[in-house]
Amino acid sequence: MTTVCDLLVRADQILTQNPLRTVIEQGGIAITGDTITDVGSWEEISNRYQPVNTLDLGNVLVMPGLVNAHTHAAMTLLRGVADDLPLMEWLTKHIFPVEQHLNRDFVELGALLACAEMTRLGTTSFCDMYLLEDATYSAVDKAGLRILGGEGIFMFPSPAYPNTDRGFEIVKELHAKWKNHPRISQSVMPHAVYTTTPAILTRCRELAEELDLPINIHLGETPTETEQCLKAFGKRPVPYAHDLGLLSPRTTIAHAVDLTEAEIDLLAETGTVVAHNPESNMKLASGIANIPYMLEKGVRVSLGTDGAASNNALNMFTEMTSCALLHKVHSMDPTCAPAQSVLDMATLGGAAAMHRQDIGSIAPGMKADMIALDLNAPNLLPLHNPVSHAVYAATGAEVRMTMVSGEVLYNDGTYLRIDYPALVAEIRAVRDWVRSKLV
Amino acid sequence: MTTVCDLLVRADQILTQNPLRTVIEQGGIAITGDTITDVGSWEEISNRYQPVNTLDLGNVLVMPGLVNAHTHAAMTLLRGVADDLPLMEWLTKHIFPVEQHLNRDFVELGALLACAEMTRLGTTSFCDMYLLEDATYSAVDKAGLRILGGEGIFMFPSPAYPNTDRGFEIVKELHAKWKNHPRISQSVMPHAVYTTTPAILTRCRELAEELDLPINIHLGETPTETEQCLKAFGKRPVPYAHDLGLLSPRTTIAHAVDLTEAEIDLLAETGTVVAHNPESNMKLASGIANIPYMLEKGVRVSLGTDGAASNNALNMFTEMTSCALLHKVHSMDPTCAPAQSVLDMATLGGAAAMHRQDIGSIAPGMKADMIALDLNAPNLLPLHNPVSHAVYAATGAEVRMTMVSGEVLYNDGTYLRIDYPALVAEIRAVRDWVRSKLV
Ligand SMILES: [Zn+2]
Ligand SMILES: [Zn+2]
Repeated sequence: MTTVCDLLVRADQILTQNPLRTVIEQGGIAITGDTITDVGSWEEISNRYQPVNTLDLGNVLVMPGLVNAHTHAAMTLLRGVADDLPLMEWLTKHIFPVEQHLNRDFVELGALLACAEMTRLGTTSFCDMYLLEDATYSAVDKAGLRILGGEGIFMFPSPAYPNTDRGFEIVKELHAKWKNHPRISQSVMPHAVYTTTPAILTRCRELAEELDLPINIHLGETPTETEQCLKAFGKRPVPYAHDLGLLSPRTTIAHAVDLTEAEIDLLAETGTVVAHNPESNMKLASGIANIPYMLEKGVRVSLGTDGAASNNALNMFTEMTSCALLHKVHSMDPTCAPAQSVLDMATLGGAAAMHRQDIGSIAPGMKADMIALDLNAPNLLPLHNPVSHAVYAATGAEVRMTMVSGEVLYNDGTYLRIDYPALVAEIRAVRDWVRSKLV
Repeated sequence: MTTVCDLLVRADQILTQNPLRTVIEQGGIAITGDTITDVGSWEEISNRYQPVNTLDLGNVLVMPGLVNAHTHAAMTLLRGVADDLPLMEWLTKHIFPVEQHLNRDFVELGALLACAEMTRLGTTSFCDMYLLEDATYSAVDKAGLRILGGEGIFMFPSPAYPNTDRGFEIVKELHAKWKNHPRISQSVMPHAVYTTTPAILTRCRELAEELDLPINIHLGETPTETEQCLKAFGKRPVPYAHDLGLLSPRTTIAHAVDLTEAEIDLLAETGTVVAHNPESNMKLASGIANIPYMLEKGVRVSLGTDGAASNNALNMFTEMTSCALLHKVHSMDPTCAPAQSVLDMATLGGAAAMHRQDIGSIAPGMKADMIALDLNAPNLLPLHNPVSHAVYAATGAEVRMTMVSGEVLYNDGTYLRIDYPALVAEIRAVRDWVRSKLV
């Protein structure tokens, strides 16, 4: 007897990322609504289901959509405005002067470009902290991706609010406005320890508990942050955050670079998730997070690109490559950060960073978020090991199909939700505006 | 009065890499035969020349084809067979067992796949050391790329020769056979200090001087190599090679990782070129070459991918990214390895590694080797700085057109010389053969 389903997907290879890390050759996936209902060999699945539609993807590698665990989507508009500069000069002379003039249109346009880029390069979900985040949600609503977002909370006024009190109100308003959206979730996002006060961080924790939301914060990004935190609060960032009750399973900390082993032990004990951003940390010369020790201690590690101004791409495939290579050479151990564990960071780790159980693998009950890589691309030939190809050989541009919640967002050069030519024209127009705001 | 030329190329952006590093908006390039005759604004150039053909590329960034200064092309067939392993286990259990069975067909097929990959991802020239190199030259002849190649010289038999004497004969035969080919040049390539003897290295130098050929050798790749060299010859690799007369402007050394500053000074004094392979060095955990000091001392530095078994892509765009990021974080200085200097390595540095003056930039008198990147790709929007985009944001897959010697090899998804579907089918067939040879 066959069961009805909305969609059957067929592919030469399916990299499931299920608990057994099964790779299925000649596989099939049954989808109903936004959810995967079954996965197996094409023979089994096609006999078991009667689909409304069938999508035969041919010689591709279908895998879970990647999860970008930390970014600032709208900053795509600042891609390449300033590179190769000391951090403070970069921030004060190039990034802040433009961000001062931020408005809704800028944020929505930049976020829509980020969505187009991530969709094209195989990322289906992302964590995002920025200003005027409501505009980012509008872009995500339009583009069809999945987001855990949050208005950045600072101790000073932002383009979104004249004072921090109003910032907290905005977080509540955003939650009320978007909480029933199937792909948009909200987190409480204090920016960092050096841009907030203990009272603000406490209030963030309380608000997160009250609304049962996750918390995201930049923490332990640079030695300079550590020094400033020591000077201001007499503690290093991780113990400081811990004493304020911020470390917990609901929290994801971005960067976690300048940490002692004891501080990493604390992350493990508290169930705090880490969003590792190797390319941004390399480009800004912030340092190298001790990922091998985190993995050894069972810390849940995810992978992010950070914003396009410090990366300069929102490309989770090249981010995986950088992650694997960096930790090998840093530890002088080629067995460090093996491909499977890096792919886990970009999928299952990302699910942890977004505090959800229903993404990151292709298995029954999971959201139908998946991508298909063209296995005829020359850099993916021959196919000896799909996990190796995903981490070491793919650029992301091999993605031929991107699906979120069972809906195809990109297929073979065409965006199905975004009017891409119109987006390109708008981006061109805003380029000169950005340049006029640079010092 | 207008001059006749074979081809006029028009592009929205031309990144010339000329001595002034000029970027031309709305530019034109005049080509006759295999050579660029003029470059300038489209208005100037189109008024000055009467072309046989015109190629209007539209909204692209035309730039010099990248030069892969060190690879082993045929090893694409081993892409992903083994990763994340200690070097000796990787070599003895995975790479050597397959290479034992090498034959002409394997090498030609692997090299053709490498050519397809490099053509697709924007590399127009490469330095290649391998076994049965004649088969690689056949592939390059077919594919249309430019190569400086060489039969690897070892102190033991190789699949190409029963003894080293015969190896030297092969080098001479290859030189005689290919020396008049417009795109194929030959170098004398002793494999490394640990796979040769002082007598063999001396003979290599003498042969290079006799035939006026360059020399390429792996040198200073790992601390283990240094130890072995000290033990066997009482000297570290660089002084050992220098005492045998190997360091000179005709020599390119690959890796140069485990070097003292005094040894780098020696490279500068002797005019020796370095082929830097950051991704391979990271993946095999070999170490980090001191590129900042080399650049400071004026050593000519080029960039290479090494073979696909240790990378795992022949992608010079992601190699540039890795190079720039690695040296920033290693030196904890974000101004280190700026985009322009990394792009110089991949273009002009590559020309030095190939010991030629006529590639690496778009300028009158240079070979017409160039690529065009799609500036509508989401990860290249907006365009604030083309050099930044080439190094930090591009994946290589944005390449829409690849030209060598004035001939278009790839255009908008189509290879004009390679029968790509046939190549894919052949690669698939050889995959199982490779796997059967693995231990
Ligand atoms: Zn960030
Ligand atoms: Zn090599």
